[in-house]
Amino acid sequence: MQATNQAVQQAIDDCKECHAICVQTIQHDIQHGGPHVAPDHLRLLEDCAQICQLSEDLMLRSSPFSPAICEVCADVCDRCAVSCDQVGKGTDAQLRACADQCRRCAQSCRQMAHMRP
Amino acid sequence: MQATNQAVQQAIDDCKECHAICVQTIQHDIQHGGPHVAPDHLRLLEDCAQICQLSEDLMLRSSPFSPAICEVCADVCDRCAVSCDQVGKGTDAQLRACADQCRRCAQSCRQMAHMRP
Amino acid sequence: MQATNQAVQQAIDDCKECHAICVQTIQHDIQHGGPHVAPDHLRLLEDCAQICQLSEDLMLRSSPFSPAICEVCADVCDRCAVSCDQVGKGTDAQLRACADQCRRCAQSCRQMAHMRP
Amino acid sequence: MQATNQAVQQAIDDCKECHAICVQTIQHDIQHGGPHVAPDHLRLLEDCAQICQLSEDLMLRSSPFSPAICEVCADVCDRCAVSCDQVGKGTDAQLRACADQCRRCAQSCRQMAHMRP
Repeated sequence: MQATNQAVQQAIDDCKECHAICVQTIQHDIQHGGPHVAPDHLRLLEDCAQICQLSEDLMLRSSPFSPAICEVCADVCDRCAVSCDQVGKGTDAQLRACADQCRRCAQSCRQMAHMRP
Repeated sequence: MQATNQAVQQAIDDCKECHAICVQTIQHDIQHGGPHVAPDHLRLLEDCAQICQLSEDLMLRSSPFSPAICEVCADVCDRCAVSCDQVGKGTDAQLRACADQCRRCAQSCRQMAHMRP
Repeated sequence: MQATNQAVQQAIDDCKECHAICVQTIQHDIQHGGPHVAPDHLRLLEDCAQICQLSEDLMLRSSPFSPAICEVCADVCDRCAVSCDQVGKGTDAQLRACADQCRRCAQSCRQMAHMRP
Repeated sequence: MQATNQAVQQAIDDCKECHAICVQTIQHDIQHGGPHVAPDHLRLLEDCAQICQLSEDLMLRSSPFSPAICEVCADVCDRCAVSCDQVGKGTDAQLRACADQCRRCAQSCRQMAHMRP
């Protein structure tokens, strides 16, 4: 199954935005303190920010390794979304936006994982 | 002088796009070969892709070092734009688009360099 | 199976060195031109440099995703070693050193892939 | 003034180690909580980890921009060392080791900043 250009572009854009919102959410969380600085939560945000950046670059250069990386990226994004929901409890706008973007990115990346360039 | 949120957001977006188009242009150039793979040109594209990524992250976390990095970033982007013009000779669409984005990014980053967070 | 500290430290060091030699080899190759700038070869070096950097960071922070990323990293390193051998034909010292480091890194990362933090 | 190969190699190695220890120190700090998660301190560690990575890559490819980036890198490392001293109060071994490496890296990078490739 071939990845259409449009699906690839969507995944690239989702990774870009997911990277950016995770970097911002880390700052938001360390400003807030308390449950926002739970070690596993912050580490997930860091992992998610970094792997989205790598996925983006691999897709931009049509790397044969982008399906494999996008598969891991989708898993990280899903876990990060759950963590943002748990910490934000639906009332923290930054964490809600971050969770939403992580879910969008997980979906786009999972689609890439099942395609072959 | 305070950086308005809008100017910062514009610089963040320009760095994102400049990073992405430089990564793509490297692939475009190595596919083409000949003058497109001139060592100094490819190195500039690599430098530009990486420093735009750093500038973006520093701005996203309102780092006190973003003015200093944005200043270097603006210089790299300007030099990269000139290099893309020279290699593309106005007839290569990818290199023209890359040069345009580099110039936009240089302008936004230079504005950040003169502001204090 | 638990990853011993020593095995993790070895994998971290191998990723650091593999990242560094791939970045240098890209410059070496674009200085040489000819078969050294074959698109698939350069893209492999770029992929390898970037994924080694990510693997390193995930191991440094004992991320639960380091086994999954190290598994992909090992594959990229193996493929990059083969490519360096083919381009360097055993006579180019930089490419031989790069191939050797890629193989060492593949081996350390594969060990991490089979361990759980 | 020409940068000798040995001084460049030292700066590359110092940036590698400084990146690694900053990534580890972030995890150490978020495990500890309290004064260890002061927002400005954590942001400095993140900035330092990222800019060391960029400085390393620019030196590895003998980029004409490495003096400019190494200059900013030296400033970030100096500030990060002070922050690690303040948070660790001389009694936290991880923070002391991080401060020491930041100071070594600041010194090597400052030397690069005054040389021209």
